Amino acid sequence: MMKIFRVIRRGYYICYGIVGNQVIRLDEDPIRALIRYYENREILGDKVNGLDYQMLLSKFEINGMKITKPLDPPEVWGSGITYEIARDRYSAEGNIAQIADKTIYEAVYDDERPEIFFKGNANRCVGHGEAIVIRSDSEWTVPEPELAVVLDSNGKILGYTIMDDVSARDIEAKNPLYLPQSKIYIGCCAFGPFIASPDEVENPYNLDIILKIYRDNMIVCESTTSTRKMRRKIEEQIKYLTRDNSIPDGTILTTGTGIALSKDKGLKHGDVVEISISKLGTLITPVLRRDNIKS
Amino acid sequence: MMKIFRVIRRGYYICYGIVGNQVIRLDEDPIRALIRYYENREILGDKVNGLDYQMLLSKFEINGMKITKPLDPPEVWGSGITYEIARDRYSAEGNIAQIADKTIYEAVYDDERPEIFFKGNANRCVGHGEAIVIRSDSEWTVPEPELAVVLDSNGKILGYTIMDDVSARDIEAKNPLYLPQSKIYIGCCAFGPFIASPDEVENPYNLDIILKIYRDNMIVCESTTSTRKMRRKIEEQIKYLTRDNSIPDGTILTTGTGIALSKDKGLKHGDVVEISISKLGTLITPVLRRDNIKS
Amino acid sequence: MMKIFRVIRRGYYICYGIVGNQVIRLDEDPIRALIRYYENREILGDKVNGLDYQMLLSKFEINGMKITKPLDPPEVWGSGITYEIARDRYSAEGNIAQIADKTIYEAVYDDERPEIFFKGNANRCVGHGEAIVIRSDSEWTVPEPELAVVLDSNGKILGYTIMDDVSARDIEAKNPLYLPQSKIYIGCCAFGPFIASPDEVENPYNLDIILKIYRDNMIVCESTTSTRKMRRKIEEQIKYLTRDNSIPDGTILTTGTGIALSKDKGLKHGDVVEISISKLGTLITPVLRRDNIKS
Amino acid sequence: MMKIFRVIRRGYYICYGIVGNQVIRLDEDPIRALIRYYENREILGDKVNGLDYQMLLSKFEINGMKITKPLDPPEVWGSGITYEIARDRYSAEGNIAQIADKTIYEAVYDDERPEIFFKGNANRCVGHGEAIVIRSDSEWTVPEPELAVVLDSNGKILGYTIMDDVSARDIEAKNPLYLPQSKIYIGCCAFGPFIASPDEVENPYNLDIILKIYRDNMIVCESTTSTRKMRRKIEEQIKYLTRDNSIPDGTILTTGTGIALSKDKGLKHGDVVEISISKLGTLITPVLRRDNIKS
Repeated sequence: MMKIFRVIRRGYYICYGIVGNQVIRLDEDPIRALIRYYENREILGDKVNGLDYQMLLSKFEINGMKITKPLDPPEVWGSGITYEIARDRYSAEGNIAQIADKTIYEAVYDDERPEIFFKGNANRCVGHGEAIVIRSDSEWTVPEPELAVVLDSNGKILGYTIMDDVSARDIEAKNPLYLPQSKIYIGCCAFGPFIASPDEVENPYNLDIILKIYRDNMIVCESTTSTRKMRRKIEEQIKYLTRDNSIPDGTILTTGTGIALSKDKGLKHGDVVEISISKLGTLITPVLRRDNIKS
Repeated sequence: MMKIFRVIRRGYYICYGIVGNQVIRLDEDPIRALIRYYENREILGDKVNGLDYQMLLSKFEINGMKITKPLDPPEVWGSGITYEIARDRYSAEGNIAQIADKTIYEAVYDDERPEIFFKGNANRCVGHGEAIVIRSDSEWTVPEPELAVVLDSNGKILGYTIMDDVSARDIEAKNPLYLPQSKIYIGCCAFGPFIASPDEVENPYNLDIILKIYRDNMIVCESTTSTRKMRRKIEEQIKYLTRDNSIPDGTILTTGTGIALSKDKGLKHGDVVEISISKLGTLITPVLRRDNIKS
Repeated sequence: MMKIFRVIRRGYYICYGIVGNQVIRLDEDPIRALIRYYENREILGDKVNGLDYQMLLSKFEINGMKITKPLDPPEVWGSGITYEIARDRYSAEGNIAQIADKTIYEAVYDDERPEIFFKGNANRCVGHGEAIVIRSDSEWTVPEPELAVVLDSNGKILGYTIMDDVSARDIEAKNPLYLPQSKIYIGCCAFGPFIASPDEVENPYNLDIILKIYRDNMIVCESTTSTRKMRRKIEEQIKYLTRDNSIPDGTILTTGTGIALSKDKGLKHGDVVEISISKLGTLITPVLRRDNIKS
Repeated sequence: MMKIFRVIRRGYYICYGIVGNQVIRLDEDPIRALIRYYENREILGDKVNGLDYQMLLSKFEINGMKITKPLDPPEVWGSGITYEIARDRYSAEGNIAQIADKTIYEAVYDDERPEIFFKGNANRCVGHGEAIVIRSDSEWTVPEPELAVVLDSNGKILGYTIMDDVSARDIEAKNPLYLPQSKIYIGCCAFGPFIASPDEVENPYNLDIILKIYRDNMIVCESTTSTRKMRRKIEEQIKYLTRDNSIPDGTILTTGTGIALSKDKGLKHGDVVEISISKLGTLITPVLRRDNIKS
């Protein structure tokens, strides 16, 4: 049982594991450490004292040590319409593309082949306490709170984490050919606050997911779901991701959203998004709108 | 006026430029050399003799020197439905997704926002003489012969090349949400044989594109188009690619196909694809079907 | 006040500092950490618990963690005849080179210019618990227990340590032109077990030095001296080392021996050498004779 | 038959080989290229035209390309008193250290064991056209024109070159314990202009060595010798250098001087030293006195 997190201290990344209540400073980078753990090899590192992990999670920064994304994924991929509610809510938007007598969401939900899409790479992702982004040309951007898996190059699951597959829903809804623009941009993705080893999670199909959006310190949106409702098994998603495709160690796959916010629930500049998943903690990120960012 | 190509010799990449008829062995990696040229700075390298470039292009390998992709793009992106024929032919397939009364292809063609999609990165691309791939689960994979641009991180055009945006058309046509699976896999993309500096090309909207597919040494498909027919200007595509998105130096954007092969024109294992574009030479690649590849 | 030591764990070097009784796992390599400390900047690292430093020093290896030399010096230099006893004992050997009416040792002791010699680099040095070497062609090799300083590239003293300037005395005594062969070879130098910051030592001219040689678990030689007897001030040695010469950060200068063993006190294969200096701990090294080493 | 030289162009080192009259731009660093040649493997590189090597040697810099030392030796070692004239001339200085009834130079010349000393590393060496240095505290510094060998880590001879073992003779003569200070400092060593493969030289014991010193464009010193007069065979020197010692690939050993200038022949600031050895070309270096160098 191990949780991995990472901090920035004076410009250096430093990676830690938590085993029981003991914080271990890892000798290796987080992807190697997860592989080592997966192979049942000894965790290499030092027992650290005085690092108050709970305080770090709640304050984001203590003693010149700032929490950040737990690893640098070389690639991030997503799965879509893996929950019935996504099929239904997405299909209920006006003017959704139809194939024969189904919306494209109904069609993919009913089909054998899942939707798999590219979501970006490390430099488009942020971690706990770092800002996710609303594109300058989107009026309706939503968080998509999801269970994500960290994979090795063979598609083996090295760990689990919370991922926010932030999506410009208006761009995506207008034409499915705009999906990459709705999904891939700077700040389109948050994950963390830590990676849990598979034995921390045990059963990934029995986890509660809670989304809260704060605006002016008030909760303006709260919604819950459970991975019990995931229709596509994670292994099935991985099978399609890796079919005739090769992925590097540390690739993240996010497994689709079970919470689909309506048009009036879009994010606004200054909001704070809080996503909790059983056993995976709480990922908190402020929201910036692109035209409010000085570039 | 400079053309850049790259070879593998004893496991090392070596990069050359051609200025006039003189082959220059470049001191720098190809992306830096293109940036230097763009900035009107002197090309750094040695004049080489005895390297028969035309022979290398026609034989792929001479004297233990094998031609390969001219650079390693950190990201490759594509544009879709930038030619009228793509809108029409794609729309004419049976059961294409509709939005209101248009197919998604008609809708994107008529809309202000272009289709932009992620196509992969260096390790999914091949060069001149190297094999492109048919996915094991596709019965209808086609070459898409396109003009491509090499960009710097600001979206400036550093050079032009031929790109083959190989696509599993059956997977894409079934549901637009399958587009990433039809577009991104190992061997999904070929480019080369060289990168031409912008002044080699002058007007990118006046180039002829010729596609030939050989099977058992016979031409089984031949088709031509011209970039005159490109509806979306390249600058417009770049504008959307880089909007709220950041790309690294050396990113390639391929500008959409003007040749859309029908279902009976799919590639088969053992075919050879030959794409010529005015001023950009001829890119030749054999075709492998994934289930014929020993992994 | 900081002591730095270094271990090998599964093939990785890891560096620690001790501040008070607290072990700190350093974020930086030991040379940078010493420079940072010298500049009165904060020590970067994590407080470690459960690492029993005293046990590590006495057992050399615990829990798959082996102590080794505390840093990799790019260059090691030595000073000679800085104690009166070295002048006298060295001069008393038979057939010592004479200049006018003095031995070369008397001449250098009396002269303004000190003896400075190159002693090797990291790959010729060993640390606490690692073997020093007797050359295959020497019958009289001795330990020279010395106070050493770690320098930055300006010659500032970053720290102090124990160094054993192992010397093939018979080769050196035969002809001073053989000095490099008596001084520089694989295993010619040991230092450690840690580097002490200057404030740990305060006054480097008031330190006791004790040498013990064990053979078959018996003490066969024991000798003591004190840095009070050092005639050449360390700053003077550094002045000559760096005159018209440039040294890299982390260079070590060893300041000359105050214990000069006679011919019957030479090291033998299987001996253990133990050197203690006040405030700098005890450096213990086994002794191997080169012809007993399988290469 | 290959000669290797190296240039700096816009801050990059680039290495060339000459085979026949053809200049080859080497794919590898010079040490690897010499090893490859030694192993009778094909030289990897491109045939270059328009690089006028003779012009480069005579002008030092053409077309923004400056000749420099042909490789970066990790270590440089020297041999002493390998010619009878060195024994005699060195011994004839006043007040030379005596062992029994011989000077130390006579003793080492007559003894089985040669003198081997550390001379520095790449950052203390200069190349053709670059300045050698007179220490600020020396009144009598001389060039020592020598045949040098480039060695691999097993002591095999990979190539030959000219080396100038610049020496502060007054410091060395005062006391042999000062030898390192007379031999090792910034600018103490020049070599080049190229490295010749062993088959270029064939017999290293039949090479003429000519030294010329220019002052105000006049020859103020001219002296010649031949490697025929070298008493110590090079293999014998290498045997002692590598006995119980390990050296890295690319180490240079300089084989001792056969020209020993008297006190009135010392170098002065502004002199130019020119050393020619049969088959190894001519190495030309200006002379700077340290106190005339702004640091």
